[in-house]
Amino acid sequence: MSTGLNERINKQVLLKKVPTGVSGPDDFEVKETVVPELCQGEVLVESHYYGVDAALRLIVRDSDEFLFRVKPGDIVHGSAAGRVIESKNEKFSVGDHVLASGGVQNFIVSNGEGLEPVDINQAPLGAWLGGFGVSGLTAYFAITEECKPQPGQTVLINGAAGAVGSIAGQLCKLAGASVIGLTGSAKKCAWLVDELGYDIAINYKDSDWYEQLEEAAPERLDVIFDNVGGDILDQSLKLIGMRGVVLLCGSTSQYTEEEMRGPDNYIWLGTMRARMQGFVIFDYADRYAEARGRMAKWIKDGSLKIPSHELQGDVNIFPEAFQGLYEGKNLGKMLIKLPAAD
Amino acid sequence: MSTGLNERINKQVLLKKVPTGVSGPDDFEVKETVVPELCQGEVLVESHYYGVDAALRLIVRDSDEFLFRVKPGDIVHGSAAGRVIESKNEKFSVGDHVLASGGVQNFIVSNGEGLEPVDINQAPLGAWLGGFGVSGLTAYFAITEECKPQPGQTVLINGAAGAVGSIAGQLCKLAGASVIGLTGSAKKCAWLVDELGYDIAINYKDSDWYEQLEEAAPERLDVIFDNVGGDILDQSLKLIGMRGVVLLCGSTSQYTEEEMRGPDNYIWLGTMRARMQGFVIFDYADRYAEARGRMAKWIKDGSLKIPSHELQGDVNIFPEAFQGLYEGKNLGKMLIKLPAAD
Repeated sequence: MSTGLNERINKQVLLKKVPTGVSGPDDFEVKETVVPELCQGEVLVESHYYGVDAALRLIVRDSDEFLFRVKPGDIVHGSAAGRVIESKNEKFSVGDHVLASGGVQNFIVSNGEGLEPVDINQAPLGAWLGGFGVSGLTAYFAITEECKPQPGQTVLINGAAGAVGSIAGQLCKLAGASVIGLTGSAKKCAWLVDELGYDIAINYKDSDWYEQLEEAAPERLDVIFDNVGGDILDQSLKLIGMRGVVLLCGSTSQYTEEEMRGPDNYIWLGTMRARMQGFVIFDYADRYAEARGRMAKWIKDGSLKIPSHELQGDVNIFPEAFQGLYEGKNLGKMLIKLPAAD
Repeated sequence: MSTGLNERINKQVLLKKVPTGVSGPDDFEVKETVVPELCQGEVLVESHYYGVDAALRLIVRDSDEFLFRVKPGDIVHGSAAGRVIESKNEKFSVGDHVLASGGVQNFIVSNGEGLEPVDINQAPLGAWLGGFGVSGLTAYFAITEECKPQPGQTVLINGAAGAVGSIAGQLCKLAGASVIGLTGSAKKCAWLVDELGYDIAINYKDSDWYEQLEEAAPERLDVIFDNVGGDILDQSLKLIGMRGVVLLCGSTSQYTEEEMRGPDNYIWLGTMRARMQGFVIFDYADRYAEARGRMAKWIKDGSLKIPSHELQGDVNIFPEAFQGLYEGKNLGKMLIKLPAAD
């Protein structure tokens, strides 16, 4: 490889093979390329943060069921937040902060399509990948437009300490509902209650978690906000309330399984006249600015926190970060903070 | 037992034990009792028809999950249609036709509560237990209020030749939608298309039924009306369309299973922004008369047929009729026509 004086070396993380179960370091590889000269209309973005999404595990399955697909040899999909460092496009200037859906790499060459300007006065750059980004917008529209919890109602958040769940629970509190969070450790439970204002948090690794949940929701659940699927969704369905809403926002427990498993207790939807429904954030794309305006106000007055779990390192730490996400190491959004951010 | 001159002998079918799998004759027993003298305010109804409901299998499970429960020693639950033969209640006169929720027996003593007057000019007495009764009302409100198929849309009816499905499909045709029926024999397929006007009928016992369905719905399914659950619901979910509705109206395939099974493909609800929802007919109880008024008009002008499968015999043929229902012997509602009807 030529490394002339003006050449920039770009490290990219590629999918090496379709993972089995939770993905590990062997499933990815790092490739170095030279950043090409920009053509007219192009922009060069230097990545500062990369957002680690659980849904990526779904996208790298050997299946066409989902919205995107990453195959072995492709660059790992996902969003970065960074800064424009060269521009031959009149819409972007050097120094602009942007979101770019270029995947895990140090530099992204873009014709401007898919680049989203970022106002770091509303929220810090990293937050735009998490609680102020797609994860937070997902929570916002799912709660305010689909679940619509009312004062006095009881909401269960499955996957409560994750990127989406941690925002969703706070939004339910802002709407006046009681919020129960299910998460995977005592430390996370304490954090949900002490830091995020959840009413009750339950560790699903406790053998009696379902009994704890039953006790926490004596009048059943008006809303189940589900990020995890599997046994947790299945068991919680038994507590859905009359005309309740089960919002399917993700199924992280199933992304690593060869065969997905449906909720056997779906029959409770019938008995309780409840509905279980899907939701895709991109349907609300024309209302992101409105949502961010409201959320920025709540962040400013202290009623909304944007939690994130930042790992510092270069793109090669991605496999470790992704594995850590599935091991539940994060409180809020899992981010990689790249050296260029400093 | 005394059988004095004025005493009437009543044969009642009781649950003997909780059935395993499809129930058989050993799960029931017949008990003879003497019909007591009426007290002030009571009515004596002679049963003419008994409606055999698949949902009974759910009600006799060893479980409190459902709306009703019949335990061993209890009379088998369900609705009869008959005639008032004695009355000490001013609201009912001898000769009135009524629906009575007294279960499987020849005579029902009632204080008048739960007796529903029947106008046999709107539909024949037996029809009031089937397509003009709860089965038909279920189809009516499920389709007109919950699924709301539009002209040009495609609807799949799972369990298409049953008591509810046979009416639901016709109502979807009246709404201008294309209707695909899934049922369990070639004979039923022909009947759905030739007699009930379904556009396409598919035999789910064909090994390639799913491929046939995929071909029949190239633009996916706007509505899935599901009576059966299990593998058929699971597979059809893969074809749900954008913002589609999956109405859960019953899960007959699961009623005989020890452990119910959920639809593994529920993940498609997410991708397609679809919803799967429950429905209980009793929520519409104050609108039954309105529904029957519209249905009577359609029956009169020939645009709605009320199919039923009548077995003639005394109450002791109930176990055989119920087993036949699970073996798919019926086209439309399964009825027992009792000797008193002649």
